[in-house]
Amino acid sequence: MDAEAFRKHGKEMVDYVADYLEGIKDRRPLSNVDPGYLCKLIPEQAPEDPEKWEDVFGDIERVIMPGVTHWHSPQFHAYFPTSNSYAAICADMLSDGIACIGFSWMSSPACTELEVVMMDWLAKMLQLPKDFLSGGKGGGVIQGTASEATLVALLASRSRTLLKHSDTTDSGDRTDALTMSKLVAYCSDQSHSSVERACLFGAVRCHKVESDENEQMAGSSLAAAIASDKEKGLIPFFCVATLGTTPSCAFDSLQEIGPVCEEADIWLHIDAAYAGSSFICPEFRPLLDGVEFADSFNFNPHKWLMVNFDCSAMWFKNATYVVDAFNVDPLYLRHQHQGHAPDYRHWQIPLGRRFRSLKLWFVLRLYGIKALQAHIRKQVNLAHEFEKLVVVDERFQVTHPVMLGLVCFKLRQQSNEVNKLLLTKINDDGRIHMVPSSSKGTYFLRFAVCAVNTELSDIQFAWKVIQELASTVLTESKTGVKDQPKLL
Amino acid sequence: MDAEAFRKHGKEMVDYVADYLEGIKDRRPLSNVDPGYLCKLIPEQAPEDPEKWEDVFGDIERVIMPGVTHWHSPQFHAYFPTSNSYAAICADMLSDGIACIGFSWMSSPACTELEVVMMDWLAKMLQLPKDFLSGGKGGGVIQGTASEATLVALLASRSRTLLKHSDTTDSGDRTDALTMSKLVAYCSDQSHSSVERACLFGAVRCHKVESDENEQMAGSSLAAAIASDKEKGLIPFFCVATLGTTPSCAFDSLQEIGPVCEEADIWLHIDAAYAGSSFICPEFRPLLDGVEFADSFNFNPHKWLMVNFDCSAMWFKNATYVVDAFNVDPLYLRHQHQGHAPDYRHWQIPLGRRFRSLKLWFVLRLYGIKALQAHIRKQVNLAHEFEKLVVVDERFQVTHPVMLGLVCFKLRQQSNEVNKLLLTKINDDGRIHMVPSSSKGTYFLRFAVCAVNTELSDIQFAWKVIQELASTVLTESKTGVKDQPKLL
Repeated sequence: MDAEAFRKHGKEMVDYVADYLEGIKDRRPLSNVDPGYLCKLIPEQAPEDPEKWEDVFGDIERVIMPGVTHWHSPQFHAYFPTSNSYAAICADMLSDGIACIGFSWMSSPACTELEVVMMDWLAKMLQLPKDFLSGGKGGGVIQGTASEATLVALLASRSRTLLKHSDTTDSGDRTDALTMSKLVAYCSDQSHSSVERACLFGAVRCHKVESDENEQMAGSSLAAAIASDKEKGLIPFFCVATLGTTPSCAFDSLQEIGPVCEEADIWLHIDAAYAGSSFICPEFRPLLDGVEFADSFNFNPHKWLMVNFDCSAMWFKNATYVVDAFNVDPLYLRHQHQGHAPDYRHWQIPLGRRFRSLKLWFVLRLYGIKALQAHIRKQVNLAHEFEKLVVVDERFQVTHPVMLGLVCFKLRQQSNEVNKLLLTKINDDGRIHMVPSSSKGTYFLRFAVCAVNTELSDIQFAWKVIQELASTVLTESKTGVKDQPKLL
Repeated sequence: MDAEAFRKHGKEMVDYVADYLEGIKDRRPLSNVDPGYLCKLIPEQAPEDPEKWEDVFGDIERVIMPGVTHWHSPQFHAYFPTSNSYAAICADMLSDGIACIGFSWMSSPACTELEVVMMDWLAKMLQLPKDFLSGGKGGGVIQGTASEATLVALLASRSRTLLKHSDTTDSGDRTDALTMSKLVAYCSDQSHSSVERACLFGAVRCHKVESDENEQMAGSSLAAAIASDKEKGLIPFFCVATLGTTPSCAFDSLQEIGPVCEEADIWLHIDAAYAGSSFICPEFRPLLDGVEFADSFNFNPHKWLMVNFDCSAMWFKNATYVVDAFNVDPLYLRHQHQGHAPDYRHWQIPLGRRFRSLKLWFVLRLYGIKALQAHIRKQVNLAHEFEKLVVVDERFQVTHPVMLGLVCFKLRQQSNEVNKLLLTKINDDGRIHMVPSSSKGTYFLRFAVCAVNTELSDIQFAWKVIQELASTVLTESKTGVKDQPKLL
């Protein structure tokens, strides 16, 4: 495809994307293809000769769309939201056009510098402590995902701890191995699975602290866990506090956990992947109080701040630890300005990186802070509207406090099996899509307000579907009609 | 920005990207801004109210472009190429429009299934052994970068090794710690820095095997390193062989290394980040002979196969190791079709993932295999044309065999300092951009054929620039005029 063809076909794609998003309500939110559907629709190998644009373009509807789960349908209420905005798409087009690789400042200064400033803009929007801003030892960086942010924080803190313990008479290697074998990281039993994975990757113990009745990690529980591990001769070094857990959007108590980590000299990382975007609203900002105790903080603008995946914002109070820990500098990557600007390759797992700050720049400017706040508020309000609907139907109960855009609920006094059956029926029915969760033995349904174009009528529609299917499930469970749940 | 505005502005961006790439030759390939240039051009915080599209759009030229190093300029000859094609940009627009998160099959079946088939298409184009194709234990996955592929391979092999050694009477934990402390990974001293970083991340020893006079890791050197480590009580477990090293595009001898790894029961990972794309041409495919010994193989279509970053293709002979090693499965990610299709979240570090296989699908179909082969051949031919120019100028010498699109050379019988000075002058001059490398004490210049629209005239132009500046440098070095190199 040459420039001329791109001017034509690129514009067709612009229209296709606009058409798709404008008409998304007419598509089944959860794809219902069977595994292996796609390989039957396309050849077994790549073509020798070029195919026509029209054929490729036409195959989007024939081959791809049947297998797409439409995350931006207002009938999609699964997981947490992922962002999608026209502003971000335009920025991504520019990023793709420039297609520079920003591993060092020199490799494309704008790529690094815009990221530095955008991370400062965001930090100010969240009222992060000044320590996290650029100019001193701190600063922000765009990671791909929250999983990577957690891993980077864990590895940096592991390196800091190994360094601290290597000052012995023993040989470096053996000391490190001994220290490594004693390291223990903390999170709550409600933390995202990526924390446990980060511990596996980093080859350190993971101590999951039992959450309290509100599914929060309490300072006292963390302190007790640390004390017990120290007694065993272990070395506590890292703790992840979650603000807005994936199962139920619970908030660990930063004000309690912070001092415990400080006292124990433990690196505190905050994972606010979903909830973080809400902190741009003054009324939600108190949920972040205690962030001053953190060594690193992360949230995903790609979840709830109108920036398309991937854009996971991470800040360090002292970036030296991560830079020093993994700085392996070959000649072909060195340049004359080293040290005067961040070389972001030292701040992340991969070497290469796209020009992702353009997405932030476009979104923040084309919306402005007020419109982004309004978006968050609207979605939280919709969650509360849904909560009201659940509350007035006595067959149901809301299982967790509705903090932001997630409502957790279940059929009151019904077994996990019956609630599983309800979820299965909802997804088999196909008019809306949701996923379940469970906590302390109780299975529940999660209703997340996701798509940016979700309106009150969509919430009401979803609730009608749920009520209708609940009636069927309750009748069946009374009459003993068996219907094995297919979907967990 | 609503759909209507996007239909207008998205198309303006299409034209901007086409204009940018059509006019890229008029821009200085290496940006010459000073660190901190950008923060002076934009406000210190995000706007409260939305800004006009025209203002944001206009700032691309005012704010961004001065700081861009133009990787797609035919005068850009640094690092290795990174791909950029209109076909891939169109696919990325679609991916951004759909904006699904493909962490499990269920979360968007098309995202997983197209990736499975595209990785099979690619595997067939490279004539990979059948073990690497889907359908059995093997299969491919798109990673973000080669760095991540190396890390994933290392972690999977570490897990496999720990499992093998945990079958003792000792407690699991202590045995693992002891085993961990003895693990040793191998690569050559020419391997990419990401291998050493992967070892740091994975907390294992890295044994850099000295390369031979051709900068290849020989089987005998690897065998000797393994034997010596075993004598010390260490546990060899992982080896990275590089096909097309970054410093000089040297090829480790797979045919020698493979049997050594097999004999020692070591996981062999092949990093062919740059060179891999060339293996679609029958005449370059012999460079991959011996791949049948590998447990995992990786190359970057985003480097040389017209697919925009990020798209790093990785295959496993047995994916079970990586899936089992890091499978941490919470309820909200489970679904009824588990086990019938890959859930790619287990194959990679992050949880979230974009719909990247669309890029491969569009590129492979809109170009076809023959055109992609022609692209590779043309760029290799241009490198040989450049080589000829170097050879006929007696002041220069080619320092390494020209295997693909990279020519390494230096001023004959001149010190490293003088060669550094030449590179500095080239980049200060600004008409072309290159980076250096060094090996076994010798500093040299790397001339990579990068941009897809590079023509013979660009090669000739670059050589004229180099010759002209070499004359200046040689005169200065004879007359003793001092000019400290600024650029390493």
